[in-house]
Parts: sequence; C-alpha cells; structure tokens
Amino acid sequence: MWLLHHYPLCPFSRKVRLVLGEKRIAHDVVQSYPWESRPEFTALNPANQTPVLVWTEDAANPDPQMRQIILCDSTAIIEYFEETVADTPIMGSGPLERAEVRRMTAWFDQKFYAEAGVLLLQERMWHRLFQRQPPNTTTLRNALVATEKHLGYVDHLIDTRRWLGGATFSLADITAAAHLSVADYLGGIEWDRHPVAKQWYLAVRSRRSFRSLLADRMPGLTPPAHYEQLDF
Amino acid sequence: MWLLHHYPLCPFSRKVRLVLGEKRIAHDVVQSYPWESRPEFTALNPANQTPVLVWTEDAANPDPQMRQIILCDSTAIIEYFEETVADTPIMGSGPLERAEVRRMTAWFDQKFYAEAGVLLLQERMWHRLFQRQPPNTTTLRNALVATEKHLGYVDHLIDTRRWLGGATFSLADITAAAHLSVADYLGGIEWDRHPVAKQWYLAVRSRRSFRSLLADRMPGLTPPAHYEQLDF
Repeated sequence: MWLLHHYPLCPFSRKVRLVLGEKRIAHDVVQSYPWESRPEFTALNPANQTPVLVWTEDAANPDPQMRQIILCDSTAIIEYFEETVADTPIMGSGPLERAEVRRMTAWFDQKFYAEAGVLLLQERMWHRLFQRQPPNTTTLRNALVATEKHLGYVDHLIDTRRWLGGATFSLADITAAAHLSVADYLGGIEWDRHPVAKQWYLAVRSRRSFRSLLADRMPGLTPPAHYEQLDF
Repeated sequence: MWLLHHYPLCPFSRKVRLVLGEKRIAHDVVQSYPWESRPEFTALNPANQTPVLVWTEDAANPDPQMRQIILCDSTAIIEYFEETVADTPIMGSGPLERAEVRRMTAWFDQKFYAEAGVLLLQERMWHRLFQRQPPNTTTLRNALVATEKHLGYVDHLIDTRRWLGGATFSLADITAAAHLSVADYLGGIEWDRHPVAKQWYLAVRSRRSFRSLLADRMPGLTPPAHYEQLDF
C-alpha cells in the first residue's frame, strides 16, 4: 500500500493527492510537518519536504530492495504514475500539448507559489500558528496583488481554451487548483472579481478527487465560509 | 531552425543548451535579458523568464499554426525533446530510475538554486553589474555555506553510484553541472574541499556539449582562472 506523507496546506501534496485520486491509486495518508525536521522524515527525503510517497511491500518479500519504494518531489511522483498508470492520462496528448501542460504546471509551482502562495502560507499559517504574530501587511498585500494578477491570467487563458493546458482536463488544472485551493483556504482570493476563473475553479473543485482534500483542516486555522460551499 | 533565448549565466538555459548538445539538436542562440522586460520577449513567454525555445518554419508553410512553436520552461523543453528525440535518452530507463533522475533534477533546480544559486547571481552579478554596489556579505556567506552542503551531498551520492541519478549519465548530472557551473563562474565553489564531487564535475564538464557554454562570457564579469582549465 502507498503511504503519502503530507500536511493539509502543502500545495505540492495537494497536487499529488489529486493525481492519486484521478488515477484511483489506493493510498493512506499521514501528516508530516517538515518544520519539525524529524530524523525519520529526513531519512525518507533528505530535502525535508512534503510530499513523499512510500510503498511498503509485505515484509515476507525475499528481495529487500523491492520491499520499499520512496518517491520524493511532486513532479517526480506524478510523472511516475503518468508512466505506470497509462489508462488515465493527465498530461494531454502529443508532445506539444504536454509541453503546454508542463509550462502551466511550472507556472503555478514556481511563479504563483513564489509570488503569492508561499507568502500567504508564511503570513497566515506560519505567523499565526507558530510565531503568534500578526501578519506583515506589506508582504500580505504583495501576495494579494500577485494572486489577482495570476487569476487574471487564468481568466485570459480560459477565454480561449476549455481547460488551462488546452482542450482536455490535465495536470495544469490540477496544479493550479491545488495552489489556488490553499490560497483560498487562507482567505487570499476574491473570486467575484474573476467570474471566468471562478467558473473554471468550481468545475475542477467539484471533481471527486477534490473531496477528501476539501474536508481537511489545518489545526488552528479555519477557512472562509465559501471554501467548501457548492456554489458561492 | 530552433532559436534559444538565453543569457550566459542563466542556469536553466545552460541545462537546455546541454540537453540540445547531448541530443545534437541544431539551434541558434540569442541573448535575452529578462530584467529588460522587452515586450517582444514577454510576448513569447508571459512568465518573462529564460529559456525560451522557438521553432520558426519557412514562412511559405500554408498552415500558420505550424509556422512557429514556442516552448517555455526548462523542464517542459527538455521533456519535449526526451519524447521526440528518443535515440539519446537522458532520463534513465524504467519509471523508478526516471523518478530518481527527476528528484535530483528538482533538487538542483529548486533547492540548490533557492539556497545558493540565486543568491550568488544576486550578489555577484546583479549587484556588481546593475547596482554597482558591493555584495551583501551575510547573504554571500549563506550562499557559500549552502553550496558546501550541496557539494557534500554530491560527494555522498557519488560514493555509492557512478552518476548523480544512478548508473547512467542523465539529466540529473546535466542539471547539477549547469547550476554548479554558474556558481563556479561566480567564484562560489572551493573544489578542493570536495575531491569526489570535483572528479564527477570534471567528467561532466569535459563532455562535448559543455564546450560552447564554457566559452561564453557575461559582459563585465570574469570567471576565476580554473573555470575553463582542463584539470585544476
């Protein structure tokens, strides 16, 4: 059985959970907070980051090398399942379509996360839970301005294509929705300013794979009322 | 003909140049400095980042959609060529080996770059060329400490495997060497403290694909004497 190490507001773990859901890969989850730097966790992933996905085989397997598989890094994990579970493709078809899906995936993993996501996590999760300080208003404002800009880009793309990566639902949608769902949990999104992006997000969020993720709570932090609401 | 937009010290462009070299993809290069935010460049890549790889077809092609292909993001570009030029694989063989290659690729693209690479670029390229200020010594010290730690990890891996991603030369080696070559250009590496990593780096750096890249100079910045030296 696969076991996913994650924490509720880790956007990269959310991506992986959504992909496991779309591909119907049975798995358990366990919460691991990287900031605790537990030796058992850094032994699994020297980068000390979630997500980590571990396969543990029946201990009776005579080959010890086959008893455990450890996959680290959300992209490495997802490409592994795209290669091994081919009946539910999530990367589009054809090299050019896949290049566009990967471009949009990198956009949210890198650009959105650096300009908005990590700042919201820092100011609204880290400061509140661990430092018990009020957020830095300048950093928070920068994060909100960046979020607006990225939602504007989603509006722009969805004006000309059905899904973020092209004609079919793909990892681009999964990645963007994973990051935006964390920002939304932290009260960082004004959806009414972006009706096009909102319609697209509601379509992604209504997928079966999203359910368990929306029910998760980060202890000590409550999401806004609309976070799980069917329509808002 | 493919045209690569890059600048000499962009580690992500270096990765792509090395992959194009390994796969013997004919291409021209043009220098694009993202910090100039030229409208022609952001029209190619709204993320305003190098590398961008553009294919321009003969203007006589009747289908305008086939006249130009624009690939953005180093990972998207490299996976595109791994899919379309299959006779020179650089991702290892088998899903588990590829997961390890992708884990190490992400390690250098994200962790090394955030903890060391971007700080060296900031303090030793940006400050010197554009702000004409001396570097911030604390930031610089942090970058050098981080570089040491990452080279220690390379030492550790190369103790137990021939190449960084496993038994064969792969994108893990290309990515690590691309990032380390930029740090080396900026005087950020003390190779003599890491003889194992140094042997591995010299082996990668001696590949044919590395040649044009080592000859490149960033105007106004001179690399240390050993940067291009055959052995040092």
